[in-house]
Amino acid sequence: MDRQSPIGVFDSGLGGLTVAREIMRRMPEEKIVYFGDTARVPYGSKSKATITHYSRQIVNFLKTREVKAIVVACNTASALVLDELTGEVDVPMIGVVKPGALTAVRSTKNRRIGVTGTESLVNSGVYIDFIRQLDPKIQVFQKACPLLCPLVEEGWWHDDITTEIVTRYLDDLKAEGVDTLIMGCTHYPLLRSTFRMVLGESVELINPAYETSEELSEILKKEDLTRIPDGTPLSHEFYVSDDPERFVEFATSVLKFDIGRAEKIAIENYG
Amino acid sequence: MDRQSPIGVFDSGLGGLTVAREIMRRMPEEKIVYFGDTARVPYGSKSKATITHYSRQIVNFLKTREVKAIVVACNTASALVLDELTGEVDVPMIGVVKPGALTAVRSTKNRRIGVTGTESLVNSGVYIDFIRQLDPKIQVFQKACPLLCPLVEEGWWHDDITTEIVTRYLDDLKAEGVDTLIMGCTHYPLLRSTFRMVLGESVELINPAYETSEELSEILKKEDLTRIPDGTPLSHEFYVSDDPERFVEFATSVLKFDIGRAEKIAIENYG
Repeated sequence: MDRQSPIGVFDSGLGGLTVAREIMRRMPEEKIVYFGDTARVPYGSKSKATITHYSRQIVNFLKTREVKAIVVACNTASALVLDELTGEVDVPMIGVVKPGALTAVRSTKNRRIGVTGTESLVNSGVYIDFIRQLDPKIQVFQKACPLLCPLVEEGWWHDDITTEIVTRYLDDLKAEGVDTLIMGCTHYPLLRSTFRMVLGESVELINPAYETSEELSEILKKEDLTRIPDGTPLSHEFYVSDDPERFVEFATSVLKFDIGRAEKIAIENYG
Repeated sequence: MDRQSPIGVFDSGLGGLTVAREIMRRMPEEKIVYFGDTARVPYGSKSKATITHYSRQIVNFLKTREVKAIVVACNTASALVLDELTGEVDVPMIGVVKPGALTAVRSTKNRRIGVTGTESLVNSGVYIDFIRQLDPKIQVFQKACPLLCPLVEEGWWHDDITTEIVTRYLDDLKAEGVDTLIMGCTHYPLLRSTFRMVLGESVELINPAYETSEELSEILKKEDLTRIPDGTPLSHEFYVSDDPERFVEFATSVLKFDIGRAEKIAIENYG
């Protein structure tokens, strides 16, 4: 395995860019190959079988880009496919759920954690499993929030209607007195200020992307895979399964630099 | 072609069931084979190339069911793929856009028509083209409403937040003084009472499904393809590309009878 190789990062679409952003901040010397499955987005309401099938095709594509590690930058896919696909690749593969759970467990003082995410994520119960493995005495309260991704993609990041919908979704978790809330979908960090407004200052908001980039950094060090800057400028690569125009625009607004171009891939041909 | 064969109806997911419902009402003697692309839903934010590719696979599948006619029960797919795919099948194929445009033109008195739908539908400009072909003096005002499908699928059919979002989307069209509004997405008829509340009684709401079932009926008569009831009970068939559970539940609530079961198809194997 070549330490100069890129890191593969994938998501059902745009949300995983918030994870790519954290990796770029934490490890500015690493090159990223990002794949967004924009032709088949979203994954959050779909079945384990379908999400596994799609993720396997993406992993096969990332292998052709000779990545040295793979980050499943999607909570739903991390929850549903990580175990199964880990055995099929010979590079380290990590998801966002385990790091998110670990941070939440470290954060909570009253042992009451809230989990938000897509329907498929919440139904999987994976956050509950990870949290209970770490501390069986913690109580976990979950809420599926299927409208939040469409709201982010509509661009209503700071909007009264978004506040109203977030309030409705979070009311029960607030009433349960959680002191820590996992933003269990990679779109949600873009609504952080609304979550903060609705929950107040006393609830810790967990963005699993931070801890994920931390874990990735440790793994690369341990495996002797950190990239050594060679003086040439880094150029991240972006791939999508649908036409790239809208992706490029969104990516530029999330990453705060012009990503230039993204290339469309016929992803269903990858197995 | 056998007149006893079924009619194929397809959509990106659940919305086309409102079209199937109209066909069942208009032609209770006809058998329907419905396909919902629930693994790749929605189409409304995706490109023409992707929607054409997916629709072609579905048409190939419907051919294996030996359908005598195909209804593209999705405004976005009707707008983007009908012309291209019509030449590839040897049975009549109709979409919902042309019938919807025709009804709207007949309805308007002040020659000001509003069109609502997905982003891809609105960007295609197909409703404008059809309407202007019928009457070049009509002015058409469009509005993409990307949050309405997620709201319907979340089940918030009668909800203050839905009213607020519909109000925001329709404000401009209302200000333009349209007297006729096309509900250009098959999900929207499920929000008819909200559209009515927001627009008032003076605006005619067009559900293209009515006129589509009318046109289909005429074509079947002309081509001598109407089914002759043979005394055996009809059993419609339902197919999906993802796990059927959620689809069956939704279909039962839209169609008002228990559809029994739906079968999952590996749709990407169809070409």
